[in-house]
Amino acid sequence: MMNIVAMTPELFTRFWPVFSAIIQAEETYAFDPCLNEQQAFDLWCTLPVETYAAVENNTVLGSYFIKANASGPGAHVSNCGYMVADAARGKGAAKVLCQHSKQRALAMQFNAVVSSNTVAVALWQKLGFEVIGRVPKAYRHKQLGFVDTLVMYQWLAADESVA
Amino acid sequence: MMNIVAMTPELFTRFWPVFSAIIQAEETYAFDPCLNEQQAFDLWCTLPVETYAAVENNTVLGSYFIKANASGPGAHVSNCGYMVADAARGKGAAKVLCQHSKQRALAMQFNAVVSSNTVAVALWQKLGFEVIGRVPKAYRHKQLGFVDTLVMYQWLAADESVA
Repeated sequence: MMNIVAMTPELFTRFWPVFSAIIQAEETYAFDPCLNEQQAFDLWCTLPVETYAAVENNTVLGSYFIKANASGPGAHVSNCGYMVADAARGKGAAKVLCQHSKQRALAMQFNAVVSSNTVAVALWQKLGFEVIGRVPKAYRHKQLGFVDTLVMYQWLAADESVA
Repeated sequence: MMNIVAMTPELFTRFWPVFSAIIQAEETYAFDPCLNEQQAFDLWCTLPVETYAAVENNTVLGSYFIKANASGPGAHVSNCGYMVADAARGKGAAKVLCQHSKQRALAMQFNAVVSSNTVAVALWQKLGFEVIGRVPKAYRHKQLGFVDTLVMYQWLAADESVA
């Protein structure tokens, strides 16, 4: 049984090996691959508005943060980042995390989905996100060299007036 | 004669009325319109890598910052923000500032050009930027309500290998 809970420093420490492996792979995230645990915690859990973890049997399967993608007149659009442990693939953790995040936003923008990350692109599309931009060679993939990134977006508010 | 110089706290204080008017108009920038001078200085001059001012006869005509648009595998793409005083329109300050910034980047991405800001969109296109994405209703324009924002991009490095 997977539960979505607020991230804590203790849970993040358990999640850190997953996080570290993802940034060191340099295939999906535009984060400095040399971040240490404290820097990663600050980036993932302190700067955003909220951070959640998907926990099952004491194991952290994945995590996401949510924050405003811009300020002032752009603050109604949220931005999230999601990470899921390789060992949790097939359990639907990314889907559950994304659905959880969508309930907390009026509109959502992903700024840099690495185009070669086809599993993620397909999942986001299945969950209603559209590719609304393609940035040429914006990501230096460790294996593939320069690849494009995608801007993906979904309006979520039922009514414009609530945003 | 317009000179481009490194921004200083003293120059920023002289530029602050322009900056303040631009954010309070809520027509072009996704910044909190209630920022005070110190917060604006931090955002515009401390967080970015470099900030410059266009100065003519002791008057600050405009300013821009440059920073990395992302980290790690995305750090070769720069991001800039430009502001020009209304009183300086027609002097080419925005063009001069943008050309100055392009010499400092390997690739450049503007994340949220407000689509109703047609003068800016046309200038960036003239200077080689392409619209590579359109984000629906991502900006709440003070006069027009929700308007789209544009992602604009230009690859600048002569050779992929130098990026």
